[in-house]
Amino acid sequence: MSPAVNHAMQKAVVLVSGGMDSAVVLAIARERGHAVHALSVAYGQRHTSELEAAARMAADAVEHKVVAVDLRSIGGSALTDDIDVPTGGGNDGIPVTYVPARNTIMLSIALGWAEVLGAADIYCGVNAVDYSGYPDCRPEFIEAFERLANLATRAGVEGAGIRIHAPLLDMSKAQIAAEGMRLGVDFAATVSCYRADAQGRACGDCDACRLRADGFAGAGIADPTRYA
Amino acid sequence: MSPAVNHAMQKAVVLVSGGMDSAVVLAIARERGHAVHALSVAYGQRHTSELEAAARMAADAVEHKVVAVDLRSIGGSALTDDIDVPTGGGNDGIPVTYVPARNTIMLSIALGWAEVLGAADIYCGVNAVDYSGYPDCRPEFIEAFERLANLATRAGVEGAGIRIHAPLLDMSKAQIAAEGMRLGVDFAATVSCYRADAQGRACGDCDACRLRADGFAGAGIADPTRYA
Repeated sequence: MSPAVNHAMQKAVVLVSGGMDSAVVLAIARERGHAVHALSVAYGQRHTSELEAAARMAADAVEHKVVAVDLRSIGGSALTDDIDVPTGGGNDGIPVTYVPARNTIMLSIALGWAEVLGAADIYCGVNAVDYSGYPDCRPEFIEAFERLANLATRAGVEGAGIRIHAPLLDMSKAQIAAEGMRLGVDFAATVSCYRADAQGRACGDCDACRLRADGFAGAGIADPTRYA
Repeated sequence: MSPAVNHAMQKAVVLVSGGMDSAVVLAIARERGHAVHALSVAYGQRHTSELEAAARMAADAVEHKVVAVDLRSIGGSALTDDIDVPTGGGNDGIPVTYVPARNTIMLSIALGWAEVLGAADIYCGVNAVDYSGYPDCRPEFIEAFERLANLATRAGVEGAGIRIHAPLLDMSKAQIAAEGMRLGVDFAATVSCYRADAQGRACGDCDACRLRADGFAGAGIADPTRYA
């Protein structure tokens, strides 16, 4: 939650999902001068094209690690279970695409790796505006995780502390698209769709596709998404 | 962190490692009347006898789930890596058997499952006295995790909230042994040793064996451990 400063060659763990948000976060961490250690969590996503996109966007990171944790076995989400992904828009309450505790779990794994690497900075693409229905996408969640991280680790107890960065937290999807353009992000290589096919082509109908398309439109950028 | 109350037939997720501490926690959750959903996390332990012990002790739970997360891939601990397990006693600073962010990761997965089950109570065997060198075994860590859990989930935002119970937090190993005896825990079936063999027999030399043996001695209980 600390402001943008120059972290020249300080190691950072960056959570990379393969979607447009994490592609922008990765570019922001690079711009700040971090040595980027990219982390993807294979949590039982319906399709692997997201993780393939993550590997492409992390190609020039110091390293890219994929840690598997089978969240399908605990169930509860349209993104990992046989629950229909919503396509109708409308976002009252917590959506069925919410994966229980996903951000907590992914940040925890990032924290473990940061501790091993001696990295003090963890970046994630959590965004409060468009996903306001997800409880773990709010500023108070990020603040609480940072507090926990500093109690849970050697770095917090003996060292310089851990910082959790969520630079997109208050951005709209249009602002994220514009920031990505400024940083030269190749959005065509990213996959945001909840129902992408094996080639990573988007459905164009799900809520993630809708938000993404609205973001490019709002930023006045031609939509580079590959649709099925 | 809430005090002992009667939770008759309310679901609880109980983290079960196969060691003596989590066996006692399981018995405490049962005594409080919970419908127990036991959770083991396969994080790349050196041996599987611990997880086999967990399955035995959870045999009469409503269900026992094992979720795999490969912490070996992030490295950093004598419990998952090829680092020698210490046998010399002496516990200055954070020991090499500390698995980075392990309790954060295990509690996060428990939180996700609790959310799916509609369970408001999560039990873990975290213990501050004997493992004071582990930063994620302190009361302030448990409190911070409970706070995070209530920001991260539906239950926290829309429901009755999540409680994190660490009933062994302030107990000595002797007190844990005595409490387990009172509750009828079969300690011979538990595996605490860091270097247990394939049959779950203990080495008798590592710090975990030493603490455990001292615990039985302190409680005036004959040591039921199966030694190699």
